[in-house]
Amino acid sequence: MRKKSVHTFESTKKDVKKDTRPENLMTNLSNAYASDLLPSKDGKDLTESFLLHVVDILLHYIQKTFDVKSKVLDFHHPHQLLEGHPRFLNQLSSGLDVIGLAGEWLTATANANMFTYEIAPVFTVMETILLKKMYEIIGWGETEGDGLFSPGGSISNLYGILIARYKQYPEIKRKGMTVLPGIVLFVSEQGHYSVKKAAAILGIGTDNVIEVKCDERGKMIPAELEKNILQAKRKGQTPFCVTATAGSTVLGAFDPLQDIADICERHNLWMHVDAAWGGGLLLSRNHSYKLSGIERANSVTWNPHKLMGVPLQCSAILIREKGLLEACNQMQAGYLFQPDKLYNVDFDTGDKTIQCGRHVDIFKLWLMWKAKGTSGFEAQINRYMELAKYFYKVLKKKDNFKLVLDAEPEFTNVCFWYFPPRLKHIPKGFERDQELQKIAPKIKAQMLEEGTAMISYQPCGDKVNFFRMVFSNPATRQTDVDYLIDEIERLGKDL
Amino acid sequence: MRKKSVHTFESTKKDVKKDTRPENLMTNLSNAYASDLLPSKDGKDLTESFLLHVVDILLHYIQKTFDVKSKVLDFHHPHQLLEGHPRFLNQLSSGLDVIGLAGEWLTATANANMFTYEIAPVFTVMETILLKKMYEIIGWGETEGDGLFSPGGSISNLYGILIARYKQYPEIKRKGMTVLPGIVLFVSEQGHYSVKKAAAILGIGTDNVIEVKCDERGKMIPAELEKNILQAKRKGQTPFCVTATAGSTVLGAFDPLQDIADICERHNLWMHVDAAWGGGLLLSRNHSYKLSGIERANSVTWNPHKLMGVPLQCSAILIREKGLLEACNQMQAGYLFQPDKLYNVDFDTGDKTIQCGRHVDIFKLWLMWKAKGTSGFEAQINRYMELAKYFYKVLKKKDNFKLVLDAEPEFTNVCFWYFPPRLKHIPKGFERDQELQKIAPKIKAQMLEEGTAMISYQPCGDKVNFFRMVFSNPATRQTDVDYLIDEIERLGKDL
Repeated sequence: MRKKSVHTFESTKKDVKKDTRPENLMTNLSNAYASDLLPSKDGKDLTESFLLHVVDILLHYIQKTFDVKSKVLDFHHPHQLLEGHPRFLNQLSSGLDVIGLAGEWLTATANANMFTYEIAPVFTVMETILLKKMYEIIGWGETEGDGLFSPGGSISNLYGILIARYKQYPEIKRKGMTVLPGIVLFVSEQGHYSVKKAAAILGIGTDNVIEVKCDERGKMIPAELEKNILQAKRKGQTPFCVTATAGSTVLGAFDPLQDIADICERHNLWMHVDAAWGGGLLLSRNHSYKLSGIERANSVTWNPHKLMGVPLQCSAILIREKGLLEACNQMQAGYLFQPDKLYNVDFDTGDKTIQCGRHVDIFKLWLMWKAKGTSGFEAQINRYMELAKYFYKVLKKKDNFKLVLDAEPEFTNVCFWYFPPRLKHIPKGFERDQELQKIAPKIKAQMLEEGTAMISYQPCGDKVNFFRMVFSNPATRQTDVDYLIDEIERLGKDL
Repeated sequence: MRKKSVHTFESTKKDVKKDTRPENLMTNLSNAYASDLLPSKDGKDLTESFLLHVVDILLHYIQKTFDVKSKVLDFHHPHQLLEGHPRFLNQLSSGLDVIGLAGEWLTATANANMFTYEIAPVFTVMETILLKKMYEIIGWGETEGDGLFSPGGSISNLYGILIARYKQYPEIKRKGMTVLPGIVLFVSEQGHYSVKKAAAILGIGTDNVIEVKCDERGKMIPAELEKNILQAKRKGQTPFCVTATAGSTVLGAFDPLQDIADICERHNLWMHVDAAWGGGLLLSRNHSYKLSGIERANSVTWNPHKLMGVPLQCSAILIREKGLLEACNQMQAGYLFQPDKLYNVDFDTGDKTIQCGRHVDIFKLWLMWKAKGTSGFEAQINRYMELAKYFYKVLKKKDNFKLVLDAEPEFTNVCFWYFPPRLKHIPKGFERDQELQKIAPKIKAQMLEEGTAMISYQPCGDKVNFFRMVFSNPATRQTDVDYLIDEIERLGKDL
């Protein structure tokens, strides 16, 4: 490296703790080149100094995002990123877990790749251990359970449907869809859109995803499912799979899994449970009954990056029957997965996946589980449920808010409309809906501009745009909930 | 948090630099709980202290992996991870780029999700900018180019074939494969197995992937491709796509893209180029001619996490025609991607992907590109090519090594056998092959045990197990190459 920049760095190194705001870093780095860092000869000190500066910036950022007095985001200056803030309530995954963060830093530093044991030995073993824990929590038997961490819930759902199809029609792998009958699958009208996406990708077609009606809480109606199955059969279609939802995206609904499992057994259909959002609730002894029947599923999607607060991304696909994942996905690429390796190749997961290289998503989860224990996750999740109940009760008392579901929340989703004074006197009907439809987007846009809070909205079925509050951010407190309500009133009252 | 542990941490904080080996950290943390960290009230100091300890461990690890005197890995104690080491030569992606690492740490800290601009504003813009740069480097026109970063090359190849099928048969999305004719695609026998995997997933079937013969260098033979296309048509099959390989996994071969493009034009077939490994060579003015014709591709897979050394994972799928990605993959999930948002929703990429949430893989690449410039990448890649040439020349002179291809390497792959003295006198033939087949696995196993170097081997076609040396690790020097050769001789001479 150039002599001069070495000295610049050396001289600041001792003051790293007190003298390391971004501006300063940029000045000091201006004389250095990327090629001066390790593995450059003599790059050790510069590398250390550079990384300590980076960390200092990151620590500063972390402290700031957890500070309620800071903006959730500054929309015009998007370099201040956002998700850790207590009032970031926009997504199912929010908040920043410090232990999980440390896990992610370590993973990045190891820069390993999940595919074989010789490359990622510890990580592969950790994945095996945690998957086993997840099978147990679901309630599968000792000899059951297979799985993988995948790049997100949509891909996990795709795996579920892919394996369902393979189990019923193993010839699909070689011969393709053209030799199969017209196969169809079922999901509730409140299910995640990734089920349709998977059907499109897999060559099944979105027309062959049959949407089953839900009750007013957003739960699939078992009698409707059975009716749809019988109808499809009469039309000459061949049902092969039902995707039940445990924790729907908008309303947070849990489909009745026991009833659905009965129907699947009766008709010999694969039961996939999309518990991407709701899976974490299995860790709460108070609330896990809402997923009763999940142990009868053939496959489950469960995203620890949602309710459990693991940094993005961390999604598991769990398959009850062992061996199917590999049978479906292996291509025997001898050059990657040599069976003549001199160790137990059972830990090589490359042949089970639809990927080749695979990012290590396991370590952060493992570290968090070690640090918090199951009881730590449980306490956190129970607190979200308490907050949801609190929020529901507060809204219920206010006459300028209206709950989408007038019942105590089953999950941490609470959906509601805000009615500005001028709308309260318009009678219910098309005209009022036309106006109400515009309220949530306007309030949210104003929040984004001012950076005070972040909450999502959407229409749903025949219901016009409503807000969806969702608790999955460990930094959120009752005071933040109160603040959000005040803020919506402040921004919305003159609309 | 518990008072006592606060003090433990406070008292060590000042000595972070000198007194922070893992054992020590564990002792200090033993009194603290995960719940004491931020967002816990008063968690600020503990969080800072904890993360600084983590960083200290990581810095120590980084320095060690770059040290030639350390083991590549200690296979019996796999907690020492490995990829940065100069003699880790096992995979197409190896080495640890410090700038890329800093980018990954920042990404983890932001913990954002790629799907909409409001959540990941900077990252979404960076993705747009870098994709545009990649279209330009490929040579597409100003109005051409669309793309995404995906979770790895296999998924990128899947995207290519998915979009190819959609372009030809848009009805597939709704109606599925059963309404299509029997479609087939082509890839060379040296192409990546992910093409077959994609065919299985997409419902096309692996039998409908036709493998085209290669010449002795591993390049697809254009006349064979055309013959296969005509044969398929005669059999009543419907060709729709050719996947050409730019940088094959084992031999590092480049298919003749211009000839393949001519054939694709003649038969109206989609041309996908799998340049996962070879794409980086476009950045070298000396070597980019090897990919001449890539500008005529309809889609390209290019993994910056391979030759360009970006931390895992970082893979791009690039589609020449704009709009197809979205048309193929969008499901209009109104609750996520509201068109009535008050900003330009063109930056929302969620509707283009087969994922929902998407990990941010762009920032590390952006930061590396800023830090190194295209010329920095070029210099690094040219150096790998020089090392490959050097390695080839050294081996050529040695009579106990035999090159799989006796020609100057076109890429950084150099494939070779080692012949222990006792094999040199067995005449060429089945018996010798039987013995030779066992040599590479034994030498590699010994290397793993001793942790001295890491290199891959595989059989290929009628060739028994040979070593594949591949240069993509910035820490590797000529002396490491010399060392590797000596090491193979030392471990192999008595086998």
